[in-house]
Amino acid sequence: MKKLINQVDHVLSESLRGFGAAHADLVQVHRDPTFVMRADAPVKGKVALISGGGSGHEPLHAGFVGHGMLDAACPGEVFTSPTPDQMLAAAQAVDGGAGVLFIVKNYAGDVMNFEMAAEMYEGAQASVLTNDDVAVEDSTFTTGRRGVAGTMVVEKIVGAAAEGGADLAACKALGDRVNAATRSMGVALTSCTVPAAGKPTFEIGESEMEMGVGIHGEPGRERVALAGADEIANKMLGAITGDLAPASGGKVLLFVNGFGGTPLMELYLMYDAAARFCAEAGLEVARSMVGNYITSLEMAGCSISLTLLDDELAGLWDKPVHTAALRWGR
Amino acid sequence: MKKLINQVDHVLSESLRGFGAAHADLVQVHRDPTFVMRADAPVKGKVALISGGGSGHEPLHAGFVGHGMLDAACPGEVFTSPTPDQMLAAAQAVDGGAGVLFIVKNYAGDVMNFEMAAEMYEGAQASVLTNDDVAVEDSTFTTGRRGVAGTMVVEKIVGAAAEGGADLAACKALGDRVNAATRSMGVALTSCTVPAAGKPTFEIGESEMEMGVGIHGEPGRERVALAGADEIANKMLGAITGDLAPASGGKVLLFVNGFGGTPLMELYLMYDAAARFCAEAGLEVARSMVGNYITSLEMAGCSISLTLLDDELAGLWDKPVHTAALRWGR
Repeated sequence: MKKLINQVDHVLSESLRGFGAAHADLVQVHRDPTFVMRADAPVKGKVALISGGGSGHEPLHAGFVGHGMLDAACPGEVFTSPTPDQMLAAAQAVDGGAGVLFIVKNYAGDVMNFEMAAEMYEGAQASVLTNDDVAVEDSTFTTGRRGVAGTMVVEKIVGAAAEGGADLAACKALGDRVNAATRSMGVALTSCTVPAAGKPTFEIGESEMEMGVGIHGEPGRERVALAGADEIANKMLGAITGDLAPASGGKVLLFVNGFGGTPLMELYLMYDAAARFCAEAGLEVARSMVGNYITSLEMAGCSISLTLLDDELAGLWDKPVHTAALRWGR
Repeated sequence: MKKLINQVDHVLSESLRGFGAAHADLVQVHRDPTFVMRADAPVKGKVALISGGGSGHEPLHAGFVGHGMLDAACPGEVFTSPTPDQMLAAAQAVDGGAGVLFIVKNYAGDVMNFEMAAEMYEGAQASVLTNDDVAVEDSTFTTGRRGVAGTMVVEKIVGAAAEGGADLAACKALGDRVNAATRSMGVALTSCTVPAAGKPTFEIGESEMEMGVGIHGEPGRERVALAGADEIANKMLGAITGDLAPASGGKVLLFVNGFGGTPLMELYLMYDAAARFCAEAGLEVARSMVGNYITSLEMAGCSISLTLLDDELAGLWDKPVHTAALRWGR
């Protein structure tokens, strides 16, 4: 295993310490229990957004803590769910009196632990469960569809609404609406290596790819021969639009997300292929994102997500955001 | 070779088309000759900053085109210098009447071709040559030190000055000053694969690393056994501070730059190690950057850069920037 680390069991703590030091103007990193919160939290009168999940998907989620997005993120060990005490402590720290919205990716461990935290937390609260991955209905760690890159879109749009004064019920409804308007699918060319495991999560041949891969390297739809970018994009977007059934002329956010090990040059090439698919499908790409946002350590590959936008969602997407990984308008 | 591409000889053109479409609000992509320019160029009365070099280092340079940074970038094929006609066409397109500043990384091909463009261009002009890499004095593609991640720092700070109305002589002097205040060094854990070559640029053992690697995978100081993050950071920063000789109590920009294939989690861990070195060396980390900005396709590894900051440089660093890859303050 070739990694820039000291000891395997210090990876998360040292990485979070670096993150906190590099972004001390934006966040505070708390330990025992571990969570990352906005430096200015609690924000009085604002609904507090809390997400979390296993580490190894950076910048998700801690990189999205800040103005206009998350109030706190609870990182577990690599690809391991955070524990309820982390979420409970985060909720107590960032609740500004308007309640807490938990944004949870649909993985069995995350769902169970966020539910336990919700039971323990006595303040006003609601939850949004993301499940945007069209690849498979059930999976290694999931009953129902997996929550993947679309989670960032939910966090951004609901974060803007919360910053603008939306109440807890409105934030919850909006989160569910954005999730329902979003579909994703991924492809992997290589595996990733979890530090504690010390070896690749899965084996894959030199001329194979995993279509529909999950963000932990879990199996997708099929193991097939490596294809060209256009064919891959068409297959992924075919599955996405087949499920999302957008009206012709519909406006979309087109989001090409790298899994960590694929050069940005290839992600823009995939965006080009995806944009051509959208044009042929009669979809208007009204907003775009390209980059490594929901990663799987050093896995090579990417996901494509579409979110159907109306004027309200596009407007909320455009609102200022100031986090370590996503920043505009301030 | 596992890459998300269609045909090897279309990688640059399709990637640039995707880049232009994803950032149509910011840039225009011109072909024949190829360059990327600010959508609002030429900016009347402003010194125009132009950089360029081989592709494969994304987001450098096209990702830094926009308000407060570059006016144009000239991308060559992967790890191949752009040609003088690209730079000449870019200069003619973006010169707003206050002259053109070429920012050139010290590689023999880049230097030669930018010099030829400078000879052909009839407007007012100057050049800044970056050579921040302390690893080696001469290298595979270089006489003298290589220009690496510090180039981004030069582009950001001089870009802010140009946006603020600094004239050509002032921009040239500032660029030279930032370059002289900056040192970098890199380490590689794996090779990268140039699409046209189809195989890894270099071989490296499972327990080896290349200390002082160049951003094309060219050799550095030594091939040694893989070490821990602290030891690697200490060795790199020892070389950097040994050469830069910062005064105790000096303020620095600490920039941990990923080469593409290393997870962000590890880059923050390296930042933590680097920040501890700086504290022990009596340096105040006044500004921080962590992420993949000057990459080498999918090479695993990172570089560390230090820039000595005074109030003027820190102030210019903080000025608004709005590009595809670097954005704050607007």
